[in-house]
Amino acid sequence: MISTKLTELLGIEHPVISAPMGSVSGGRLTTAVTRAGGLGLVGVSYGDPAFIDEHVGQAAQAGGVWGVGCVMFTFDERPGLWDKVLGYAPPVVALSFGDPDQVRRYVASAAESGAHVVVQVHDPEQAAVALQAGASVLVAQGAEAGGHHKTQATLPLIPAVLDITQGVVPVVAAGGFADGRGLAAALALGADGVMMGTRFAVTEESLGTPGFKSSLVSGATADLVDTRAFDVVRGIPWDEVYQARSVSNDFTRTWTGRDAELAARRAEIEPEWAAAVARDDTSRRALFAGEVLDLVHDIRPAGSVVRETVAEAESILRGLAGRITP
Amino acid sequence: MISTKLTELLGIEHPVISAPMGSVSGGRLTTAVTRAGGLGLVGVSYGDPAFIDEHVGQAAQAGGVWGVGCVMFTFDERPGLWDKVLGYAPPVVALSFGDPDQVRRYVASAAESGAHVVVQVHDPEQAAVALQAGASVLVAQGAEAGGHHKTQATLPLIPAVLDITQGVVPVVAAGGFADGRGLAAALALGADGVMMGTRFAVTEESLGTPGFKSSLVSGATADLVDTRAFDVVRGIPWDEVYQARSVSNDFTRTWTGRDAELAARRAEIEPEWAAAVARDDTSRRALFAGEVLDLVHDIRPAGSVVRETVAEAESILRGLAGRITP
Ligand SMILES: Cc1cc2nc3c(=O)[nH]c(=O)nc-3n(C[C@H](O)[C@H](O)[C@H](O)COP(=O)(O)O)c2cc1C
Ligand SMILES: Cc1cc2nc3c(=O)[nH]c(=O)nc-3n(C[C@H](O)[C@H](O)[C@H](O)COP(=O)(O)O)c2cc1C
Repeated sequence: MISTKLTELLGIEHPVISAPMGSVSGGRLTTAVTRAGGLGLVGVSYGDPAFIDEHVGQAAQAGGVWGVGCVMFTFDERPGLWDKVLGYAPPVVALSFGDPDQVRRYVASAAESGAHVVVQVHDPEQAAVALQAGASVLVAQGAEAGGHHKTQATLPLIPAVLDITQGVVPVVAAGGFADGRGLAAALALGADGVMMGTRFAVTEESLGTPGFKSSLVSGATADLVDTRAFDVVRGIPWDEVYQARSVSNDFTRTWTGRDAELAARRAEIEPEWAAAVARDDTSRRALFAGEVLDLVHDIRPAGSVVRETVAEAESILRGLAGRITP
Repeated sequence: MISTKLTELLGIEHPVISAPMGSVSGGRLTTAVTRAGGLGLVGVSYGDPAFIDEHVGQAAQAGGVWGVGCVMFTFDERPGLWDKVLGYAPPVVALSFGDPDQVRRYVASAAESGAHVVVQVHDPEQAAVALQAGASVLVAQGAEAGGHHKTQATLPLIPAVLDITQGVVPVVAAGGFADGRGLAAALALGADGVMMGTRFAVTEESLGTPGFKSSLVSGATADLVDTRAFDVVRGIPWDEVYQARSVSNDFTRTWTGRDAELAARRAEIEPEWAAAVARDDTSRRALFAGEVLDLVHDIRPAGSVVRETVAEAESILRGLAGRITP
């Protein structure tokens, strides 16, 4: 076991968090990660009420140290939804993608509920805002991450964020981690743990469809593309500083870089696209994945991902210490 | 001291390499790094004969384990220049930026001279080519690097390259490293050392001009931009898969993304631009730097960078091993 400021604060065994991933991190994945000694997070994301009742409900029922992950900018229009999420009394609330005002409001509200509040940041400026707002944990996510991300890469971002937080709160590294080599590297950088998305998306317990999982298992990092096409076709008002990384397919090849045209023709294109997604058509659906894709070759139980990641990191760190000579 | 496959192969003390940086890594920087127990590389880059005689000559005179770094695609037209470089009998020849055919030819020729041959790669496919060509060491450079780079970030790239090399040759991590936290992380990922560019560019011994060094010391990662403007104005035929990262200034703000227009007006613009560069005008000159910029705050002696990086990494790795409980 590796204890860090994160494991101590949250009372978890291992410094490993499964990322809150929309339509992917449901109750089963969350519970599996929490049971294995990590921190499982349900991907509430844009907030579908039925999804919340089913999956947040399931995680709450299972208990332990679990949490929810919410995309801040989509909650403002729907205050009832936020109360619904907090109603399940998650021990941890993870917040991502909000402007400074949203960060302050949601951190305050989540903290009031008694939860540990985790805020995902993408550059040192956002880290300073989240720290000031009273976050209890920061997740510093670098640009190699699956799903939405900004531009700075994880490796130089983590030390830069740590230079700002100065040990006041635990800092979790995200974006580019898939195994024990990554966890060992994150700890060496000074981080207090890792959050992994892509790796946990390709597990038995993930809600990802068969087409999604097999596209990620067979895909390579070289096949990835940054795109706004899936945000535009769904009509989700993402700030343009964030792009989404997906395995490229017919839909990204057709529409990436043609945001205005896609937005204008949405009424015509969206229904067909949604029908293709409903059929699990991998040539059209979003296949969000990070640059760790070259390191992910199989669908595994989430608990074994947690355990093997920690065991590998321990063995690496012991081995390295043994290679130092006076 | 941390011994790795790299230190053993090359017979150096520390697994730290100073990057070959055009107009920046001269004889003094190379010698300082080599004397401190790392591997210093002279940035022969595009290959100016007078520069080679002065700086490669100086490094050769000082002796020890030193090397040269050459940009392959610029040597083909000038075979005499390659022989001139090899004439100084560098113990290490580092090669970067070539197509598979160039990699094979320059690796073979450098190996014939008796040098250890280091090849910089940017994705797993290039790693396989370099390995097959007979490189003795690979440098895997991620997209957060200063100067020219491709798109994959270092953190997931290193394990992916190691999965290809399978321990046959040492792998050095580059792009995003500036201190002992970075070296410890690179070793944890399984790399056999780090190559640092930006950090060594801002040292007392670097040939960087006062304007260049002070721009990097005061600049932040958020000020960086990917650009081809400096390549286009200089008329250097870079493959478009590589962009250069620079601190943004009036020149990048004016010309980034307008390659065709800049190329067409080169005869008019280049002389003025070159004159500004000769005056060390930081609003116009290239200010190549990587995403570690937030971690670089001072101009230090290169030898102290080597020693402090290693000492910090050792202390981190010892500390982490001590935090593992059964
Ligand atoms: C399939 C997928 C869906 C994601 N959905 C969300 C989301 O809904 N909300 C969120 O905050 N982050 C989301 N992310 C980003 C993750 O929270 C995390 O930052 C990222 O996956 C870390 O990088 P990695 O994929 O390299 O592990 C998603 C990532 C993936 C791979
Ligand atoms: C100022 C500067 C000039 C560079 N010039 C060259 C060059 O001429 N040839 C080359 O192969 N790489 C060059 N590079 C890239 C380095 O070899 C190295 O890959 C990179 O600096 C590593 O990333 P870092 O800056 O984050 O340490 C340069 C980098 C910098 C910062």
